Amino acid sequence: MASSLLTRQLAISLQQNLRLAAPGSRYVSKTATKTVSEFEYDAPSMKTAVPGPKSQELLRQLGEIQNVGAVHFFCNYEESRGNYLVDVDGNRMLDVYTQISSIPIGYNHPALIKVMTNPNNVSAFVNRPALGILPPENFPDKLFESLLSIAPSGMSRVQTMACGSCSNENAFKSMFIWYRNKERGYASPSEQEVGTCMINQSPGCPDLSILSFMGAFHGRTMGCLAATHSKAIHKLDIPSFDWPIAPFPKLQYPLEEFVRENAQEEARCLEEVEDLIVKWRQKGRPVAGIVIEPIQAEGGDNHASPDFFSKLRNIARKHGCAFHVDEVQTGGGTTGKFWAHEHWGLDDPADVVSFSKKLLTGGYYHRDELQPDKPYRIFNTWMGDPSKNLFLLEVLNVIRRENLLEEVTRSGKALLQGLYALQTQYPHILSRARGQGTFCAIDACNDATRDSIMLKARNKGLFMGSCGEKTIRFRPALVFKEYHVHQLLNILNDILAEHK
Amino acid sequence: MASSLLTRQLAISLQQNLRLAAPGSRYVSKTATKTVSEFEYDAPSMKTAVPGPKSQELLRQLGEIQNVGAVHFFCNYEESRGNYLVDVDGNRMLDVYTQISSIPIGYNHPALIKVMTNPNNVSAFVNRPALGILPPENFPDKLFESLLSIAPSGMSRVQTMACGSCSNENAFKSMFIWYRNKERGYASPSEQEVGTCMINQSPGCPDLSILSFMGAFHGRTMGCLAATHSKAIHKLDIPSFDWPIAPFPKLQYPLEEFVRENAQEEARCLEEVEDLIVKWRQKGRPVAGIVIEPIQAEGGDNHASPDFFSKLRNIARKHGCAFHVDEVQTGGGTTGKFWAHEHWGLDDPADVVSFSKKLLTGGYYHRDELQPDKPYRIFNTWMGDPSKNLFLLEVLNVIRRENLLEEVTRSGKALLQGLYALQTQYPHILSRARGQGTFCAIDACNDATRDSIMLKARNKGLFMGSCGEKTIRFRPALVFKEYHVHQLLNILNDILAEHK
Repeated sequence: MASSLLTRQLAISLQQNLRLAAPGSRYVSKTATKTVSEFEYDAPSMKTAVPGPKSQELLRQLGEIQNVGAVHFFCNYEESRGNYLVDVDGNRMLDVYTQISSIPIGYNHPALIKVMTNPNNVSAFVNRPALGILPPENFPDKLFESLLSIAPSGMSRVQTMACGSCSNENAFKSMFIWYRNKERGYASPSEQEVGTCMINQSPGCPDLSILSFMGAFHGRTMGCLAATHSKAIHKLDIPSFDWPIAPFPKLQYPLEEFVRENAQEEARCLEEVEDLIVKWRQKGRPVAGIVIEPIQAEGGDNHASPDFFSKLRNIARKHGCAFHVDEVQTGGGTTGKFWAHEHWGLDDPADVVSFSKKLLTGGYYHRDELQPDKPYRIFNTWMGDPSKNLFLLEVLNVIRRENLLEEVTRSGKALLQGLYALQTQYPHILSRARGQGTFCAIDACNDATRDSIMLKARNKGLFMGSCGEKTIRFRPALVFKEYHVHQLLNILNDILAEHK
Repeated sequence: MASSLLTRQLAISLQQNLRLAAPGSRYVSKTATKTVSEFEYDAPSMKTAVPGPKSQELLRQLGEIQNVGAVHFFCNYEESRGNYLVDVDGNRMLDVYTQISSIPIGYNHPALIKVMTNPNNVSAFVNRPALGILPPENFPDKLFESLLSIAPSGMSRVQTMACGSCSNENAFKSMFIWYRNKERGYASPSEQEVGTCMINQSPGCPDLSILSFMGAFHGRTMGCLAATHSKAIHKLDIPSFDWPIAPFPKLQYPLEEFVRENAQEEARCLEEVEDLIVKWRQKGRPVAGIVIEPIQAEGGDNHASPDFFSKLRNIARKHGCAFHVDEVQTGGGTTGKFWAHEHWGLDDPADVVSFSKKLLTGGYYHRDELQPDKPYRIFNTWMGDPSKNLFLLEVLNVIRRENLLEEVTRSGKALLQGLYALQTQYPHILSRARGQGTFCAIDACNDATRDSIMLKARNKGLFMGSCGEKTIRFRPALVFKEYHVHQLLNILNDILAEHK
């Protein structure tokens, strides 16, 4: 099943690591220092329409087990390289969606294969520990080397989790616990609190709320879902909480051309935030925390200015609410800085920053005072997965070694300029190009046109994602270079030229 | 860092798999056919009190990053083998807690190391896919070979998830969706529903409930937590839902000696369940689903009879509620059958069965009609992790090859007999020995005595878990054999003999 290229690469890497090669062997692996361009493909290559016949047969098989309505096609991950995703019918596509923005440095990066083949790492994969009670010897070291080396300003504490939803759920819980401890003056909970919490009743389970924004996406477990307001299909039929929902600024793009109008819109939204905090306090459901994405992703790639976030952070402080920045999609370097909130230029940007996706492990950072006061308050069996931390450490090494944040800034600039050019050339089809780093997006005139462009692009070897109502979102890996940008723009241009 | 034994074992396995060995090499690996007793240690071996000095230093380091109040000690997973967990101070303990019951076939099982070193598997580890949109080629096959080969009676559909909480959250969501679809006669949702769900309001986010049981544990995300009622520390300060909570039978043990009394107690609880269903319907918060563990684990190892579960299943059916059996802790063979609910002898035991822990991947099975009607209703970025499915497949092979369910039945019988003997000998200290397979427990006279016994045992090389108020729970791996039982009983006996 594995391609001969991968097997060969792996064999070399294994021999190096295990020193199994016969003395005098001339194998000299350069896998670790190779850059992505040296091991990946040159361009897309299409053999069938997508999904091709093999994908369709597999779709039928999987359909007997699960709802497969969201499946695009089946992949040959062994053959995929760098920015190119290969499907089971042999089609090779330039992938600018990267598993919903969760592949940091491309497919089969040699540095990650090395993690797998290092015998020191085997035990981390086959013996998944309950990290909260029995961590492995190297756990503190690995946290310091990986997650803490990229900690947001003002944060020296981090809790790993298995996925983005668990990260946000537990971040919410930390905020609730912090808020109630503050309310009771850090005294022990009353007997009444301890008793009522066991039966889901107040005051033990208090009527607290999280303020979120219309268009937000924070996950799909029931706590996260109560703060998610991007699409009805996510929320329909699931019971929820009566939590306040503020408007997210609807800005005009390019941002620099509409500074005054956008500032007014942001002021309107901030005013509404303060009104809601007061209103919900009066209602008896005080806002314990505010949660926001630096760029609303699933909700349609909606941006706001550093000034907006800075003022929002101050509002949170003023009203005694924790401020939670959800960087699950924006984190990991895709905006040209490791965290999108770094663009705000704040020393104290947040109380909690959650992550997942490109970080490979979920989790959240928090300021010291958000740490739960007792064990088992934030807890579950696995609390993350140390094998993912090993991959993350290598991803960070590659980002530094290959200067990938600079690469992202450069490619992102080229991508956004190209999108501006396309919307100028096809103003009846495209508008509102926007982005930070390679975290870019553009709107089609309607959802049918957007969907049609995406399907045509896929058949020409360009795989993109959608978000919002009629938006195309670009989420390439950090190894996406200027020549990949040009491939992308050429394919898009061809499709738009043919578009009736 | 890796021990020489592990490295050697790995090197042999790699050479075999990659055929890197020089022609004529005499290496013949038997790792795959070795049973656990051939590669593990003989007995505990203690060098320091636990936690030892190295653990204490690491605890200090980790304490700068996280609350470490729940950490027992730091582990050397490379040196751990089979039933024996080795800590960083060189102490080797018989582990009958197994990472909160989540290690299926012991530490560093050769079969799992083989998974890691098979080059065909590398890609599954380094390219984690978004399974809901871009599954790998072998995904349906691997699901059929692994999870579907052990599907509960009446279930041919399975959805993987990353952890136990996500499994239960999504199982709850499936039940809510199913219930509302039924209520609206499978018509499309109204405009009002679509509109209100975006702002967390009814009817789009309906006032539905899940009926759970006092003492239950189903996880710690906010949906799961609303059905969890084991300990206040889990729930305090977290907002919750007004959902009905039924009493779980408080049985007398040994079960066979109190058949009549226990049947009465179970009848009382079942009556209460029906009352609650009616009451909550009248309240306008109908019960969409009932969730229950086959044995309440975290809540104190509380058992109920097959008759109770059979009747409860009928009550769910009668009132149109889905019936969700949470096998996160009981599943995977530890009761002597693969699923604990198999002991009930029902053809149609449940509508949903969730799992995690020993299955290495989270997820849930469900009957056909519980499948969501549209894509993206049950969805997230990763939806599990195919690399965990590879490990699971090998675990299932080992369970079959080594007849581990029979082993569990045999060891479990010896363990329970031994616990009966101990409680007869020390009736002032121990009582209520109970269990199914090796899923056993015994109560101490109070929590202080329980904790003291556990600490003393740890220092003598026996690592156990606790649950409920004063219970010791035994959760060994499936490779726990009769001679391990005797080691355990000998250590316990020594401690009890010394107990003032």
